[in-house]
This record gives sequence, structure tokens and C-alpha cells, in this order.
Amino acid sequence: MSGKSIPNRILLPEDQTPRQWYNLRADMPEQPEPLLNPTTRQPLREEELYPIFCKELAHQELDGETRYIDIPDAILDYYKTYRPSPLHRAYRLEEALGTPARIYFKFEGNNTSGSHKLNSAIAQAYYAKAEGLAGLTTETGAGQWGTALSMACAHFNLPLTVYMVKGSYQQKPYRRSIIQTFGAQIIPSPSDTTNAGRAILAQIPDTTGSLGCAISEAVEKAVTSEGHRYVLGSVLNQVLLHQSIIGLESKSALALYDEYPDIIIGCAGGGSNLGGLIAPFMQDKLTGKANPRIIAVEPASCPSLTRGKYAYDFCDTGKVTPLAKMYTLGCQFIPSANHAGGLRYHAMSPILSKLYHDGYMEAVAYEQSNVFEAATFFSKTEGILPAPESSHAIRSAIDEALLCKASGEAKTILFGLTGTGYFDMAAYEQFLSGTMTDHVPTDAELETFFAE
Amino acid sequence: MSGKSIPNRILLPEDQTPRQWYNLRADMPEQPEPLLNPTTRQPLREEELYPIFCKELAHQELDGETRYIDIPDAILDYYKTYRPSPLHRAYRLEEALGTPARIYFKFEGNNTSGSHKLNSAIAQAYYAKAEGLAGLTTETGAGQWGTALSMACAHFNLPLTVYMVKGSYQQKPYRRSIIQTFGAQIIPSPSDTTNAGRAILAQIPDTTGSLGCAISEAVEKAVTSEGHRYVLGSVLNQVLLHQSIIGLESKSALALYDEYPDIIIGCAGGGSNLGGLIAPFMQDKLTGKANPRIIAVEPASCPSLTRGKYAYDFCDTGKVTPLAKMYTLGCQFIPSANHAGGLRYHAMSPILSKLYHDGYMEAVAYEQSNVFEAATFFSKTEGILPAPESSHAIRSAIDEALLCKASGEAKTILFGLTGTGYFDMAAYEQFLSGTMTDHVPTDAELETFFAE
Repeated sequence: MSGKSIPNRILLPEDQTPRQWYNLRADMPEQPEPLLNPTTRQPLREEELYPIFCKELAHQELDGETRYIDIPDAILDYYKTYRPSPLHRAYRLEEALGTPARIYFKFEGNNTSGSHKLNSAIAQAYYAKAEGLAGLTTETGAGQWGTALSMACAHFNLPLTVYMVKGSYQQKPYRRSIIQTFGAQIIPSPSDTTNAGRAILAQIPDTTGSLGCAISEAVEKAVTSEGHRYVLGSVLNQVLLHQSIIGLESKSALALYDEYPDIIIGCAGGGSNLGGLIAPFMQDKLTGKANPRIIAVEPASCPSLTRGKYAYDFCDTGKVTPLAKMYTLGCQFIPSANHAGGLRYHAMSPILSKLYHDGYMEAVAYEQSNVFEAATFFSKTEGILPAPESSHAIRSAIDEALLCKASGEAKTILFGLTGTGYFDMAAYEQFLSGTMTDHVPTDAELETFFAE
Repeated sequence: MSGKSIPNRILLPEDQTPRQWYNLRADMPEQPEPLLNPTTRQPLREEELYPIFCKELAHQELDGETRYIDIPDAILDYYKTYRPSPLHRAYRLEEALGTPARIYFKFEGNNTSGSHKLNSAIAQAYYAKAEGLAGLTTETGAGQWGTALSMACAHFNLPLTVYMVKGSYQQKPYRRSIIQTFGAQIIPSPSDTTNAGRAILAQIPDTTGSLGCAISEAVEKAVTSEGHRYVLGSVLNQVLLHQSIIGLESKSALALYDEYPDIIIGCAGGGSNLGGLIAPFMQDKLTGKANPRIIAVEPASCPSLTRGKYAYDFCDTGKVTPLAKMYTLGCQFIPSANHAGGLRYHAMSPILSKLYHDGYMEAVAYEQSNVFEAATFFSKTEGILPAPESSHAIRSAIDEALLCKASGEAKTILFGLTGTGYFDMAAYEQFLSGTMTDHVPTDAELETFFAE
């Protein structure tokens, strides 16, 4: 296969775009451990999720069997406004690195929400609307999920309340404005609108909040508001299901050029992008059809896979959610204040945690200045300003490509470019001016969170 | 033709994408008035432009005859990374307005520079590199051109110095950072690096600068630096040539569905987007093949077409550039400080000025709060956050669609959505919070600039 015959941007023809999501659980030899009711500690039944999630999403959350799920027409229609997303061959990056590796990236930042989050946001909003709900609640940290969901809710005329981590709310006023422009109500968290928020404020009045705390508030608001449900942009099984569109498109687009990745790399916070990107490749791996390396990349300041424990934990700080068995740093964990990007959730998707635990995946962690070095290098070579989150995958892809350079191997590398960094220029500015600092928690620090 | 068979996003097949730019001047019954040497007041010869522009671009600037110009392969390759840009059918907007009109928009904001400026930036950088230049200089106001050109120069490893209007430099630190991330040097204008800048600083030490002043500095820097040339993102004939790709793609994409616009609407600052969008439709109009209405939309605070004079004027504040016959507010004109978006140039492209003067085009002007009302309405319906500049066209398209609603006519409307507003959230915030103000210069105010 001649590398030069491959275009620098591959768009899957519309008649080859996926019309079904792929449910990775259907091919897992062992299922992830079940969610537990936080009170009874018994496996959750679907009905027990109805107060939190709309019925179809509750069903998807617990459905480990159905392999392929039809994407409803209304969602396919919406997907057509920005999908298939392009698969890029990173010729310029390869050349700049002098690597024999062929580097591809699936670019999910070219929709107007700026990230892959829209893939699940539009699905969750659709099912909520179809059930006739009065509104949704959610949380957002870096703001990508809040932006995507506010667009999706505007599309379906569905009221939305977003609890935004107070630190982000203050540091990213423009993220706040865009979410408001799309019509959502936005509340800095912790707030006095919920018991969970008031409890944390009483304890630490000047806290800048955390994702776990914002989740507690959004869940509480949903279950106490008539006709409202809660939605979440990562971690959940349903989210990985919706995000499988990323991997399905990637695999088909590569197949057009007889390519198959030797290495698949995704950044990992809660796992939404990674789980979606790797889904069909992991299927091949689980069913013995292929054996690609799969690498999860996380921040060294929030290292759930590489330094967390595989244990049952709450999904939120306020301990109101079900318990999930995940790699976790403890539900009270908050990344150091100098951590600039997203990927700040205390735990990892139960599906990905199980796959990692069972040896199907690798994980690496990078410090942020190393990540921003890769981001600026990538900006200059490929002309795309990546989100800090995505740049973790870039760092790893560059490192793997440099290993290929050293060994002379022409491996095929695929990574997920989840979004753009236009709202993260403050962090870029820190990096450019040399004022960016790193933080790696000590074992002792981590132990204090595990102890709680 | 059934409206419902048209998808909400039309992507032109790759084998139908344009491989030539279209030079509108070749079909104009009367040519625009020639550029004049500022000293001799005689028509400029191509060689006289060589100190400012690289040779091929100097040639394109003065070439009124060649109808189609081949796009070099290196530029076609780059275009493939983000073109064809999508043509959207605005079903949701039509529905929200209750109009029988069919509304289309050509979306140029989905490349990673966020605007149509990249179409000409990559061309100008290519020709400069091909000529072996040592570097380029330019100016930027709102920052879209600076961003696009810094990406283009990074692609060709070409050093770039950007003079950024000081007001924007201070108000938009993130625009500054993104341009720096792509590797360009950025200098707030007026600066002490040029005679033009020093002269203005001596006169008005606390000035926030103007586009015209930044142009003076960038031109001076280019002509006084070994191997450097100046590039500009609008106004010029060469820019309209490169931007014709917008209109060519739009026309072909509409033709796939047997559509042809009754009304074509573009925002107009210096004319780069408008001139490109309308090019092939204006060709039809000039050659009697069709007779669409063509509407230029400008800010009421910088109304060059609607309230300017058609006269020879300098392209810059410092009066170092050639003279062009244009609709102008006077080269000393600076829009009111409360003007939020771009479209702040004191004059209009000589080609568009001539066409407007000869009756081939209409022009309207809107106040900015009216424009932002359209922008937020559009955000919620179409899920795209438009740039303030683009939103001028949205305002006009909505108004025309409402006239169709009143008259019951199912007209086909095409407008140009030139870019996204992610770096303009401060202005959106003003609008959302009700603190945005408008400014329409009085006749007396305008006369003071004409008098100079």
C-alpha cells in the first residue's frame, strides 16, 4: 500500500456511515461488575434508575447483551449535520518527526460544539424529549459537555440546567456565555440550590468545587424536580455506546485504504472518547480477529488507571449516586489547582476499568507541560489547535512514532483528537510564557483520598 | 422540487470541487478604476507592486483579463484538509421563522482557523514561499486573518510578523495566544517598530489603534525588511480571486439539487467573503444568464457602502499605500469604540465598489444589537455560534425570509456564514446582559473624516 495515495483527510462516504451503535459489552468475555444501590448494596435493577435517567437510557445503561442498537432517525439526521467526522492522515507530523510510522487521527473537534461530546449529548437529549420530559440537569467541568448538551437541548427545545464547577465558571467566563447563548441555565457549583451544595459550602465556604460535587448537585436537582432527569457526558455505559460511532467510522474509513491500526491511542478522563474510539477494534481483540495495542492516556495529576484502585466507589462526591466498580482515586479526589485541562474525574468508566483490569489495554500518564509541548508542536505541523485533553493522546502518539523512528518500524497509529482548544488559551498562554507547572500527587496524598 | 429531499448539509463530492479560481474582473463590462501610485498619481505598473507583494500576487492583483486561474497543487492539497466546506440547508431556522423561503448558508467556519480567511491565507503564503521569501508581515483586527495566516505560514515554515490593532490585542488576549501558538510574532499597533507607528504614538499616545494604522506599519515593515513582503486578508483583487472558491463550491452544491438562489447575502467589511461568495452568481448576472439579488450587509457603525463616498483614497491611515477608488469613509475613519465585531475597515474592495456603483448590488447596514439578536436566534436554531461579522448576513437573511413569510413567496436565499464566534464571547456576554450599545455616526461626524 502506497502511503502517498492516501489523502490527508478521509471522509467516509455517506452510504457507508454507521446506522447502529456498537455495544462493546456484548463481546466482553466477562461483564463489568454491576452497579450497586448505594443503600442496599445490591445490584441495581433498571427501574431503580428511572428516577435518575429516562427509561430508554436506563435500559441502555444495563443492557450488556444487545450487540448493535439502531440509531434513531432523528439522531441520524442530526449526525448528518457534522458527521462523518474526518479521519486525517498526519503527513506533516510524520515528516516533522521523521518517523516511518503512519499516523492517523480521528478529528471530533470540527462540529460547532468543538468536541466529541455532541455524539452522546444529542442522543441523550433525544431520548429525554421522546419520553416527554420537562427538562434535564447535568454538570460540566472544562465545559465541553455543557456546550454540547446545551446545543442538543436547544435542538429539541428542552430546558437544561448546568452545574458548572465553580473554578471553571470563574476561569472560563466564555464557556459560561456560550452555554447561556444556547439557552441553558448555568449555576456555579457548589451552590445553595441543593442540599449537597449547601453541605459542601458549609464545610469549605471558599471551595472552587469539583466534578464529583457538581454531579451530586445535578443528580439531586433532577430527582427533586418534576419531570426532570439527569444526564452525564462520560463514565456511563450508555455514553460509551453512543460514542462507538467514533470508532466505527474510523475503522471503516481506514478500511477504505486497507489500513488497520497497530496502536490505538485515546485520552481518558471518564472514558467517553476512549471507549468510543476503541470499541470496534476492541471487539476484534476480544474475538481474536486482531490484536492491536490499545493505550489510554491520562494526566499524571489525575491518574485513575495508572495509580487508582479497582474497587467499588461512588460516582460523585456527595455519595448520592449508585456505586460502580472502577479504577478510582476515591470520590473525594480533586486534581491539584494547577491542572489546566479536563480529564479530572476521580474514576474511570466501569467498562474500561474492567478491560484494563483484564489486560486488554495499557495506560500511561503524562505531566501537563509535556502534553502542551506536544500540543504546540502539533498545532504548528497539522494546523489544528487541540484541546488539552486531546493533547494527551497526541503526546503518546508522538512518543510511539518516535519509538518507530528508533526501531525503523512503519507501524500504523490511530489516535483520537477529541476537540479543539479555543477555550483553553489561558493554559496555552501559561505554557508559552513558561509559567505552567506540573503536579504529580504523592502516594501519601493519594492515600488520604482512598482512606475516606 | 421537494424541499425535504435536500439534506441539511450538502458536501460537494471531491471530484466536483473547483480546481480553478474565478476572476470576476474578466466578466465586468467596466473594470474597476486602476490603483494609483501615491506619489505620481499615475496608474500602478505591476513592477511597482513588487516591493510590497510577491510577484505572482502582484500579477494577480492587476490581472483583469484571465477568467480562470489554476489553483496550484500544493494549495489544492491544503484545501482538501478542510474543503469543500459544507453548504447547509437551514431547515430549523426556516421552521422557527415560519417562512416559505428556502434558506441555505455556506459555512466557512468549520476549518480550524474558524473563518473563510484561510482560503486566501494559504494561497498568499504559498506564493511567498514559492518565490523564496524570507518572511511576511500583515495586520489583524478582530484576529481571524491573523489566525488563518499564522496557520498558513506555519504550514510553509514561513516567518510571520502580525501587527494587531492595540485595542484588539488588549481585549482579545486569546486571539493573541493562538496566533503565537502557531508560531507568529505579534506586535500591538501602533508600535515603536515603524515610523508610521511612532508618528501616531507621538500624536495620540494612548490610542487603541486602527486597522488602517496597522496596515501602515505592516507595509513599512515589509518594504524595509530584507526578503519580506506584505499580505492582506481583504479588499485586494487577489483576495477576492482566492475567495471565489466559496461561491464556486456553493453554486455547484446548489446545482446538485437544482437550486439557484434568488437572493445572495454576504457580510462586508473589506469585501473578502462577499466578493468570493457572489463571484459566480455575479458572473451570471453580468453575462445575462440569471438575475439574482445580491446584498452586501455592513455595520451601521462602519457604513462604507451605504454612507461612504466613491472616490480615490488610501488603503491605510499612514497614507503609504497605493490609492484605490473605493467607497470610503476616509482613511482616518475609526469605528466607535463600542463596535464589537470586525467589518471595521474604512473602505470597500474596489471591485465590489465598482459593481455597487454600477447598480449590480444592494447594500444595507444594521446596528450591532440587532445583529446579535439574530446571532443568538441562529445559535439556538442551527446550533452554530456565528462570528459577529457573519451575523450581519444572518440578520439580513432572516429579514428577507420574513418578507417571504409576509408575501407567501418561497424564495431561495443563500448567505455566507463566514466564521465562528468563539473568540467573541465578550460581545455575546454584553448582548446577553443587556449592556450592548449601538453607535451610528452622524453626517457631521462622517464629514470630519472626509475632510481630512
